[in-house]
Amino acid sequence: MKQKSITIYDIAKEAGVSSATVSRVIARNYPVSAKTRKKVLDLIDKYDYQPNAVARSLTKKETKMIGFVLPDITNPFFSQVFIEAEKYALTKGYTLILCNSMNTSEMESKYLKILSERQVEGIILMGGRINKKLPDAVEVSEVSQVLDKLPVMMINGKIDGLHCHSVRTDEAKGMELAVNHLVRQGHKKIGLIGGVNGITTTDIKVEAYRNLLLKYDLTFRDSWQIYSGFDVQTGEEAIDKLLMLNKDKLPTALIGINDLVIMGALKACRRKRIKPFDFVGFDNTDLAKNSSPEITSVSHPYSQLGEKAIDLLINASKSSNESKDILLDPYLEVRESCSITKL
Amino acid sequence: MKQKSITIYDIAKEAGVSSATVSRVIARNYPVSAKTRKKVLDLIDKYDYQPNAVARSLTKKETKMIGFVLPDITNPFFSQVFIEAEKYALTKGYTLILCNSMNTSEMESKYLKILSERQVEGIILMGGRINKKLPDAVEVSEVSQVLDKLPVMMINGKIDGLHCHSVRTDEAKGMELAVNHLVRQGHKKIGLIGGVNGITTTDIKVEAYRNLLLKYDLTFRDSWQIYSGFDVQTGEEAIDKLLMLNKDKLPTALIGINDLVIMGALKACRRKRIKPFDFVGFDNTDLAKNSSPEITSVSHPYSQLGEKAIDLLINASKSSNESKDILLDPYLEVRESCSITKL
Repeated sequence: MKQKSITIYDIAKEAGVSSATVSRVIARNYPVSAKTRKKVLDLIDKYDYQPNAVARSLTKKETKMIGFVLPDITNPFFSQVFIEAEKYALTKGYTLILCNSMNTSEMESKYLKILSERQVEGIILMGGRINKKLPDAVEVSEVSQVLDKLPVMMINGKIDGLHCHSVRTDEAKGMELAVNHLVRQGHKKIGLIGGVNGITTTDIKVEAYRNLLLKYDLTFRDSWQIYSGFDVQTGEEAIDKLLMLNKDKLPTALIGINDLVIMGALKACRRKRIKPFDFVGFDNTDLAKNSSPEITSVSHPYSQLGEKAIDLLINASKSSNESKDILLDPYLEVRESCSITKL
Repeated sequence: MKQKSITIYDIAKEAGVSSATVSRVIARNYPVSAKTRKKVLDLIDKYDYQPNAVARSLTKKETKMIGFVLPDITNPFFSQVFIEAEKYALTKGYTLILCNSMNTSEMESKYLKILSERQVEGIILMGGRINKKLPDAVEVSEVSQVLDKLPVMMINGKIDGLHCHSVRTDEAKGMELAVNHLVRQGHKKIGLIGGVNGITTTDIKVEAYRNLLLKYDLTFRDSWQIYSGFDVQTGEEAIDKLLMLNKDKLPTALIGINDLVIMGALKACRRKRIKPFDFVGFDNTDLAKNSSPEITSVSHPYSQLGEKAIDLLINASKSSNESKDILLDPYLEVRESCSITKL
C-alpha cells in the first residue's frame, strides 16, 4: 500500500504561505524573508519532506549554466583552471559563462549582478575580492546577497564568514617544494620576488617562505623578498631593484610568485647581460614550458581544481549546511631554470 | 487620426498560418518550412509590416547571451580576441558563453548543438571548421542548421555558401608588413615556418609570402617554407628540419605563422647554441611582448575584431540578406627579434 506522502501544498498550508513561496525556499532562486524561510525549512525538517525531482526542476529553473568570474582570461593560470572546469562541467551537462572582471572590483560587482539575473545555477569566483586579506564590506555583502539566491564556489581563495565552498591548492606546501628543491641544489641564499602584500595568495607564500628559511637556518634578508606585482614587467622591476645590492649581497636563486614574474626576471637578466640566478616559478602555466630556458615551476593540480569546483557547486544545494574548504596538493615540475648557473 | 496598422494577425490570416508561425519567421528561432517562410516574408514585404519591439521581444526570447566557440582559450590569440569581444558585448548588455572545442571537430559539433538549445541569440565561431579549405559536408550542414535558427558570426574564417557575416584580419597584408620589414633590414633570404597546408589562415599567408618573394625578386626555396603546425613544439621541429641544410643554404630571417612557433624557434636556437635568425611572428600576443628576446609581430586589430563581431551579430537579424565579410588592417609591432643578428 502506498503511504500518503507530504506534498508541497501540505507544507505551504501549515506554514500559512503559498506553494510558490515554499518552492522558492527550496530552489533558493528568489529572496524570501528570513522568518518565512525558517518556518518553511522547519516544516520540511519536521516531515522529512523530499521535493521530487520533476517538481524541483519545474520550480527551480534548471538552466544548466554556471557563471565563472575571474580577473583576466589572457592570464594562463586562469585560462588553465577555466578550461579544466569547462571540460568537466560538460560531462555533467553544464556550460560556463565566462566573465572577465579585467582586474577591477567594479566589473566583478557588475558581473555578480548580471549573472544572478541570467539565472545561472551557481557562480564560481576566482581572484579579485576572494584573495583580499581584508575585503571591502561592500564586496562581501554583494557576494552574500548572491548567496541568498545561488551557491557560490571559490577557487584559490575564500571570504571568511560566508557560507560557500572553496577549493584551493595548498600554496604553503608548494613553497616548501620550491625551497626544498633549491636547497637540494645547494643554494643557501634564496630570494622571493613578486606578489602584493595583503593578497592572500601572496601572503601564504611569503609566510611559508620565511618559515622555511628559518627552519633550514638559511639567511633571510628583507631585500631578498620583493613585493612587485604579478606580471612580466614587475618581474623585471624586481631584478632591477635586486641589482642595486652589492654583488656579494645577492641571492643565488629566486622563487617567483608566479611564472610571469620569472619570465620578467629572465628578460631583465638577459637585458643586463648578467649570469642569471636559478629560478623556480609558480603555477606551471604553458609559459613555463614554452619559455627559453624552460622554467621549473610549482604546479596546481589543474584538473582536480576544475573538477572539485564544479562537483561541489553542482551538489551545493543538496549538501548539508557545512561549507567545505578543500585543500589540494601541488607538485613540482622540474625544468631547466634550476641549473642555469651550471649551463 | 490614427491609421490602422497591419498586425501580426493580419499577416497570419492572409498567409493561412498561425500568428505563432509568423513570429517564428520573424524571430528565426524555430524551423519553418521554406514555402511558409517565403509566403510570410512576401506578405511582410507587401504591407511593409514592422513588428513592434515589445512583440518581438516576447516572441523572440531575448536572452542577451551569445555563444562563442573557439579551439582553445589557453592560446593567447584566441583569449585576446575573446576578451575584446566580451568587453564590447558587455557595453551592449550581452554576456558570452565560452565554449572550448579543445581543437576537435566533435566538440565543436557538440557545442553548436548545446548552444542552440541554450537559446543564445547568436553564435560566434573562431578557428576549427571555418578555417578549412575543404570543410567536411557534415560540418557545413551543422552550421547551416544552426543558421536556420540563429545568426552566426565567423572571426578570421568563413564557409563559402553560408549566409553569415564574417570579420577577418587581412593576413595577406600582414605578410606584406612582415616581408617589407625584413627586406628593409637588408634580408634577402627569408623563410616561413609553421602552419598546416589546407588551413585557410596558413594558405593565405603562404600564398602572400610566395608572391612577395617573387615581387621583390628574392630567392624562394621549398626547404625554407616549412609546414610544421601551430605550437611551440612545432616551431622547434621546424628549426631542427631547417638545420639539416648546409649552413650556406640557410635563410637569414624567419617569419612564423604565429608567435608560438617563433617561441619554439628561439628555444631550439638556444638549445643548439646557434646564432639565431631574425624573426617576425604573427598575432602579436602577450607572448611576443613577454618573450626574451621580445618578438616583432604582425598584430591583429584586436578591439576592432571583437567589436565588429558583436555589432554584426547583434544586428544580424535587422540587416538585409546580404552577408558582410569585413576585412580589417593589421599592423606591425616592432620589437627586438629583428635585430638579434646585430645584438
